Amino acid sequence: MNNVFVVNAGSSSLKYQLIDMESEQVLVSGNCERIGIDGGKITYKYFGTKKVVETDLPNHKAALDRVVDLLLSGETKVIDSIDDIVAVGHRLAFSRVSPCSNEITPEVLKDIEATTEMFPLHLPGMLTGIRACQDTFSGKVQVAVYDNSFHLTMPPKAYMYAIPYDYYKDYGFRRYGYHGTSHRYVSLRLAKLLGKPVEELKIVSCHLGNGSSLCAVDGGKSVDTTMGYTALAGLMMGTRSGDIDPSLLLPMAQKAGLDLEGIHNVINKKSGLLGVSGVSSDHRDVENACAEGNERAQIAIDMLNYQIQKYIGSYAAAMNGLDAVIFTAGIGEHSPGLRQEVCRNMEFLGIQIDEEKNAANHGDEEEISTSDSRVKVWVIPTNEELMIARDAYAIYQSKQK
Amino acid sequence: MNNVFVVNAGSSSLKYQLIDMESEQVLVSGNCERIGIDGGKITYKYFGTKKVVETDLPNHKAALDRVVDLLLSGETKVIDSIDDIVAVGHRLAFSRVSPCSNEITPEVLKDIEATTEMFPLHLPGMLTGIRACQDTFSGKVQVAVYDNSFHLTMPPKAYMYAIPYDYYKDYGFRRYGYHGTSHRYVSLRLAKLLGKPVEELKIVSCHLGNGSSLCAVDGGKSVDTTMGYTALAGLMMGTRSGDIDPSLLLPMAQKAGLDLEGIHNVINKKSGLLGVSGVSSDHRDVENACAEGNERAQIAIDMLNYQIQKYIGSYAAAMNGLDAVIFTAGIGEHSPGLRQEVCRNMEFLGIQIDEEKNAANHGDEEEISTSDSRVKVWVIPTNEELMIARDAYAIYQSKQK
Repeated sequence: MNNVFVVNAGSSSLKYQLIDMESEQVLVSGNCERIGIDGGKITYKYFGTKKVVETDLPNHKAALDRVVDLLLSGETKVIDSIDDIVAVGHRLAFSRVSPCSNEITPEVLKDIEATTEMFPLHLPGMLTGIRACQDTFSGKVQVAVYDNSFHLTMPPKAYMYAIPYDYYKDYGFRRYGYHGTSHRYVSLRLAKLLGKPVEELKIVSCHLGNGSSLCAVDGGKSVDTTMGYTALAGLMMGTRSGDIDPSLLLPMAQKAGLDLEGIHNVINKKSGLLGVSGVSSDHRDVENACAEGNERAQIAIDMLNYQIQKYIGSYAAAMNGLDAVIFTAGIGEHSPGLRQEVCRNMEFLGIQIDEEKNAANHGDEEEISTSDSRVKVWVIPTNEELMIARDAYAIYQSKQK
Repeated sequence: MNNVFVVNAGSSSLKYQLIDMESEQVLVSGNCERIGIDGGKITYKYFGTKKVVETDLPNHKAALDRVVDLLLSGETKVIDSIDDIVAVGHRLAFSRVSPCSNEITPEVLKDIEATTEMFPLHLPGMLTGIRACQDTFSGKVQVAVYDNSFHLTMPPKAYMYAIPYDYYKDYGFRRYGYHGTSHRYVSLRLAKLLGKPVEELKIVSCHLGNGSSLCAVDGGKSVDTTMGYTALAGLMMGTRSGDIDPSLLLPMAQKAGLDLEGIHNVINKKSGLLGVSGVSSDHRDVENACAEGNERAQIAIDMLNYQIQKYIGSYAAAMNGLDAVIFTAGIGEHSPGLRQEVCRNMEFLGIQIDEEKNAANHGDEEEISTSDSRVKVWVIPTNEELMIARDAYAIYQSKQK
């Protein structure tokens, strides 16, 4: 029984999966919510059944212990012993140093802790998750998988900002990019589906969700991505502005009577689809408002689609070619409308979408380009948990030798 | 004698040309420097001869009057009477309202003055130039030609920012773009050189100088451009950062101990080629440093070339096609190295440069792509003054009817 337990921890939540690495099947998946808050709740899905346990969860460790109880006993039992779990994989936002997933040694933990300043909202929860797992799954290999690692192959021309060099040297201000685990998973998955080595493919991966980023994957390696030092950069998102004239912040702040922190808040939390449409940060709501003739909603949708088109073109130039475009994550998998508009009038780049196939696809793993489209267009549901489990399992295996 | 006097005024300088509109030949060109400062100087070039007059120039009006003296009398005489000048064309940065050049009526002047807040450094000088010309060339048609007018054909998806809509509605915060007169000139010129209607061409115009912008010209109309609300946006420039993660300004300011105005100053004046290379804001200096093996200079040059490549790709996607790329302005006309690197590995988009032709071209109007390159690549020296003169002359002629 070679199972890996995958953890994605927040400050008051902990998402988990138990994956059998022989079959790569998910045995159990679920979420612990309202940790440290009254009214805790555990969702536990196993073999097509969903169980909800309502119980106070004073801390991450308590939540994990309850999940382990469910795994080991009663009607929810899936494994016989905690030793059927060989490794734990953790989703982490960021490593400044590691170009790949690694075992969480005391030194690695220190490196992770040192990036708290960059992720003050997210990292403390992730760290709490790691410490709880080190306790509950004592003696198991704990592996960190970083959202930015995949992008550490970018060349300087793609990751450097044209700001004074000392800001890069002294503070590490450069493009990092995120969603790396997702871009890596879907590009590897596409290569398998096409029956081609990923080394021979030029792919633009479009991870479009509440946060969105595109990635140019050349020969299996990230050579550019739209997110930057922060996860605001690039495309407009639910509430994030994406790239705007950076010199606009001063007049914006002056007109609004805000300081830099205030305007930073505006571009992070009040912009994007929400800011332009005035309707919602949720892409579905904005699409629905369009259908009802809301003009601002239409502008927001047009902007997003156009930005994606331009990035696909720029990455085709960056790679001097384009074999495939992948749509993934919430919006990418579930909005036929977005995919259709993004692929419209892109024949010059070799993109031709099968409109019927696309319209019928709501998240299935499927090619949606026409048979004679030079560039293949695919919908591939992302699976970051599987990628994390694979990395954790590979490190576990390498330690057995 | 149908001559137009073209003026490009700064706070302490006034560049001018006298153009014969029948032949479109420049009769006289020159510059008044150090206006209102000790040590004034007028340069006056006519028929291959250059004269320098050193004399105090207390104000713009005095400078203009001295130029008119030179035009009308002595060895520098070019015209018999001030009535041989039928119109005066003024270069202006910006109009929020006018999609084309217009006669400077009192209302138009008021519109221009209302944009002073946006261009506090440049507009006062331009306005002083207008008032001086209204005096010296009293009774002549005065025409304003705006750097952004050409871009007012952009669709909302290209000009809107994903910030709260009220910032657009209440304060006009949107993409405007600049260098419009240059992009317009070179795209019209290219159509003439190719013997095709500009309406049938998809062009990316690369205006690369101390300030740089690219423009997607589809059928003769600007459909997108890299500069934004301000002239910092888009490409990295001599000292301007171009687009960077807008959310990076807060950590930059915090680390540097600056407020928003301070960091605004950093991205405008200490960034770009200068900031990355540490060598110079002048592209030639940075290229020379590269040749000597300076690594940071090489990074800066690689970044700029790569950014241009990506924008060409994104605009090819925006237009669903690409017929030609134009290089113009200081760097575009005079850096074969930049042109070569930008066009390298761009076969996918149909770009193939003739390396020998390109290497030998230092600002000649010439095609530099290979004969079988699907996309034509041209060097076209820009001529904003001629464009300004044409617009002024057209308005003069329409008033004669």
